[in-house]
Amino acid sequence: MVSNIHITLPEYKRGFHLITQHIINAIGNMPSDGLCHVFIQHTSASLTINENADPSVRQDLEAYTNKLAPENAPYFTHTFEGSDDMPAHIKASLYGSSISIPIENSQLALGTWQGIYLGEHRNYGGRRNLVITIIS
Amino acid sequence: MVSNIHITLPEYKRGFHLITQHIINAIGNMPSDGLCHVFIQHTSASLTINENADPSVRQDLEAYTNKLAPENAPYFTHTFEGSDDMPAHIKASLYGSSISIPIENSQLALGTWQGIYLGEHRNYGGRRNLVITIIS
Amino acid sequence: MVSNIHITLPEYKRGFHLITQHIINAIGNMPSDGLCHVFIQHTSASLTINENADPSVRQDLEAYTNKLAPENAPYFTHTFEGSDDMPAHIKASLYGSSISIPIENSQLALGTWQGIYLGEHRNYGGRRNLVITIIS
Repeated sequence: MVSNIHITLPEYKRGFHLITQHIINAIGNMPSDGLCHVFIQHTSASLTINENADPSVRQDLEAYTNKLAPENAPYFTHTFEGSDDMPAHIKASLYGSSISIPIENSQLALGTWQGIYLGEHRNYGGRRNLVITIIS
Repeated sequence: MVSNIHITLPEYKRGFHLITQHIINAIGNMPSDGLCHVFIQHTSASLTINENADPSVRQDLEAYTNKLAPENAPYFTHTFEGSDDMPAHIKASLYGSSISIPIENSQLALGTWQGIYLGEHRNYGGRRNLVITIIS
Repeated sequence: MVSNIHITLPEYKRGFHLITQHIINAIGNMPSDGLCHVFIQHTSASLTINENADPSVRQDLEAYTNKLAPENAPYFTHTFEGSDDMPAHIKASLYGSSISIPIENSQLALGTWQGIYLGEHRNYGGRRNLVITIIS
């Protein structure tokens, strides 16, 4: 059985943000065993899984990512939407547009330290739409 | 229910290429709700989701990726298949060997600007084999 | 139908390691058609698919990855667990926490040269827990 749930996240500033609880709340009751797939319907934001506790991981990941895909590279031609646009597309593909997590005992089978991150790669990205797919 | 569909893409030159329509055509009728998983059976090409409209995104992503994983790094030892080979393996893992997209209303639930990219990372990679898995 | 299988890998040193056979052994009998999803419950190790034959690919990928996310970046603030910790979080997100592979004819539909890699990004990461999900 496959069911889809849509959510629109609150607007976040550029950076990595913990959104695990938004996902869990949107799903509600989970099947005993299954797979949870989360998909972001945008090309300048991403989803990834990383440390859920110390916010310094999110801060350092953002600092690193800005160095990895810097603005104003001299060879960029896709520049008309601003200097944060092409780096945002790059980051979206490097981190990816979906994550998937097993469901066990009607819960996400995340490790102790794992949480779901939104990577917001635009300065003003607006509210982002997600599609959560539950397979059971 | 799970079903698998095989397709072999036309040969593409090195770079990122929009292959959404190849995938949609290969699937044919989709279930009302489901998940579409696309897997590439190669280690020197990748699949990713990014902007489907302006070709400058694909061009800039390729230029960036060539700087991210340059040829002829002095520490490479896997060099006997040519200078584009080890960078191609690196790019394949950075972008990944599969993408997955929810199916809703018998259509891929892509965002307005999203398309499926083949990342062809070899100079002469030949035709690439994909396995499309439809879960419903 | 969805079923989950847990395995704990042997301890590996920092680097990329071929774990395909561990996954296949843990699954046992596979359905004729399906999808195999493998998830790592840690934030400083990753899963990716790459060349299964020549070990120089794994060696070069590790050398590259250490340059891509170097230790002791001056802007890192998440440093109390050692200089290999924040780079390990970065690598975990760049390569990703899960891979998925179609199942056909009761076998993983990997390409001829594809294998499953564990990316162990800590110097002493310990034994890593995986959850294998079989969808059929």
